Amino acid sequence: MEAYSILRDLAIIVIAAKLCGLLARKCRAPQVVGEIIAGLLIGPSVLGLVSQTDFINQMAEIGVILLMFEAGLETDLKELMKTGLIALLIACAGVFVPLVGGTLLYMGFYGASPIGSEGFYKAVFIGVIMTATSVSITVQTLRELGKLRGKVGTTILSAAIIDDVIGIVVLTFVIGFKNPDNKPLSVVISTVLFFVFAITVGLISYKVFKWVDNRYPHTRRIPIAGLAYCLALSYIAERYFGIADITGAYVAGIILSSIKDSDYIARKMDVNSYMLFGPIFFISIGLKTNVAGLSGEIMLFSLGFVLTALICKIIGCGLMARACRFNMSDSLKIGIGMMTRGEVALIISQKGLSVGMMEDVYFTSVILLIIVSSITTPILLKLIYAKEDVGANTRDHEAFLYKKEKDE
Amino acid sequence: MEAYSILRDLAIIVIAAKLCGLLARKCRAPQVVGEIIAGLLIGPSVLGLVSQTDFINQMAEIGVILLMFEAGLETDLKELMKTGLIALLIACAGVFVPLVGGTLLYMGFYGASPIGSEGFYKAVFIGVIMTATSVSITVQTLRELGKLRGKVGTTILSAAIIDDVIGIVVLTFVIGFKNPDNKPLSVVISTVLFFVFAITVGLISYKVFKWVDNRYPHTRRIPIAGLAYCLALSYIAERYFGIADITGAYVAGIILSSIKDSDYIARKMDVNSYMLFGPIFFISIGLKTNVAGLSGEIMLFSLGFVLTALICKIIGCGLMARACRFNMSDSLKIGIGMMTRGEVALIISQKGLSVGMMEDVYFTSVILLIIVSSITTPILLKLIYAKEDVGANTRDHEAFLYKKEKDE
Repeated sequence: MEAYSILRDLAIIVIAAKLCGLLARKCRAPQVVGEIIAGLLIGPSVLGLVSQTDFINQMAEIGVILLMFEAGLETDLKELMKTGLIALLIACAGVFVPLVGGTLLYMGFYGASPIGSEGFYKAVFIGVIMTATSVSITVQTLRELGKLRGKVGTTILSAAIIDDVIGIVVLTFVIGFKNPDNKPLSVVISTVLFFVFAITVGLISYKVFKWVDNRYPHTRRIPIAGLAYCLALSYIAERYFGIADITGAYVAGIILSSIKDSDYIARKMDVNSYMLFGPIFFISIGLKTNVAGLSGEIMLFSLGFVLTALICKIIGCGLMARACRFNMSDSLKIGIGMMTRGEVALIISQKGLSVGMMEDVYFTSVILLIIVSSITTPILLKLIYAKEDVGANTRDHEAFLYKKEKDE
Repeated sequence: MEAYSILRDLAIIVIAAKLCGLLARKCRAPQVVGEIIAGLLIGPSVLGLVSQTDFINQMAEIGVILLMFEAGLETDLKELMKTGLIALLIACAGVFVPLVGGTLLYMGFYGASPIGSEGFYKAVFIGVIMTATSVSITVQTLRELGKLRGKVGTTILSAAIIDDVIGIVVLTFVIGFKNPDNKPLSVVISTVLFFVFAITVGLISYKVFKWVDNRYPHTRRIPIAGLAYCLALSYIAERYFGIADITGAYVAGIILSSIKDSDYIARKMDVNSYMLFGPIFFISIGLKTNVAGLSGEIMLFSLGFVLTALICKIIGCGLMARACRFNMSDSLKIGIGMMTRGEVALIISQKGLSVGMMEDVYFTSVILLIIVSSITTPILLKLIYAKEDVGANTRDHEAFLYKKEKDE
């Protein structure tokens, strides 16, 4: 019954996250950056106060689920419908360019191998790792900036969701070519099936929630049922359709985004996430790495890996966005907003490790990519937005919440 | 990376807890009862949908910490000071009577053994298990009834806290007599030291919190800092003083109970606990048991064990309360409020298992005691209070929160 030992870790995490978050804010950087750096500080890289445990990983999992659920709840469905096709195009470009870029990078470092050979697939796999955007950090940043709703925010979100799916499809294709157990086609089918499932279940559950909400508005049962719904859909997505659970959570949020109390649910979720789960998620990213253990060659490769991954996303998504008639600055926002990598990249590379398509040395590169992108994206986004008039019609979520708390 | 598999358990727990909670409410029983029964239903005893995992245990640990912290935040310090001595007397009686009762029960079943013999200590140990009240369920019930503040509530709370301490002291004495490694005296000292520590640290941190609270009233940093403070104190209590972490959490709450925003903190904690952590804690009690696997003899012993444990507490605490000039009904409330057992009883019996003073068959009896007391206490308390005029001056916490939510 050593359960109490987790209390120490949690206490340190909560304090570190809040302090660094406030510090980051003082430096006009988003709090997320502070929280990730906090993770680096208290993690094995620097102080070694807290180390990765199953418990922290599981809490972090719930954290990212809650974040994506909130993001879904705050999505403007009409906006999403409008941006659907554009998002798809941007996502595809955002997958294709890094995939090629990563492959070429690996070949540049270790020489090209004939198509179909072991080396070739290893090269391709480096590309695959670069494909999937992890939008959670961007979401958090956009929310802090109050830009989550509106065309750019919605486009980034939906594009990121779509490219998670594409990324996982690509992964399964690549693995599928190597061993005949996985059937690439079945992945495509299960993906399609999931969205069919989500839409049918979504329509029904929407009606149910709407009814309950009208009957018992602003009661605890609404957010509790919402939470259960989100957890269930996330699980079903990953367990039965092989779709990332965060995608399931986001979809659950979208389904409930049109009921009257969606803001009320989001607010209750927010209390849960800003108290404990959010900090743990962002800190766990910092915990996952140990900057100390890096050889020169890997350092160099990692550098190339990080730069390629970031630039390819900006180019791929940015140009496509521009082609879809976004203005220059919005295209840049989309490109940068899409360049964050996270849990999906980790999942993909872990998968690669397990099937022997990637040596574990490259894992460091992936984690560096996650950290660098997680830190640079919010800063860059904030800088670009700062240039514009911030007092736009999109509501500032932070201020909104603050006001709400004042009201309480 | 099978982290997502926990989502299923959580979804089931949240749904089951809420449904059974509402059902219990319909039957005019407190929601806690519903949640514990929900645990029995989804646990190995009936449906076997969810089984105990480290993760659930750790979440439950956080859950009980939050509950005790909230209880502390809602304590009326002046009231506590007033009831201090009475609480001490009640606690002592509530430890002594069950200790004797349990010993006699065991001797009655398996024959008396000479003082100092193996069998004698085994008998005494059964008594020791019965000593420690676990107040968390009573707290939750009193909160639901809006009776947490006021003389009876405060007396029960402080008496329970004190008898946790006494219980653990007794435990260490008994073990101490068996093996010379543990020094009973050192336990007494460390207990005293903890309260010295808590008071000194408490005074300082109270000033700090008060200052921050006046400077940034109703901002997120207040509850976040409060949470971190509670976690830290809980950990320190258990790690460095050998005091149950829940006691640390309760003390942390008491320290912050006098700052302006204590209600605000309590409310934020409440969102966290009613959403996820609370249900998990109460459900985990139900999960811990498997009613199916019980032999006839143990069943009989367990029956005697449960009855003795409950009646001895009611007699011990009730009579002492009466002797302290509580009226008949209040004395009964105190006796019943003190009869719940929980995590502390489990900790003690696990300790007994590890040092070989208890066979694991009796573990079932302990768990039965926890479940029976957890289910009967709230019902009985509610019945007694129902007899009286409920529209008393003590505020109804549920209604209070509901109103708050309406306000939001």
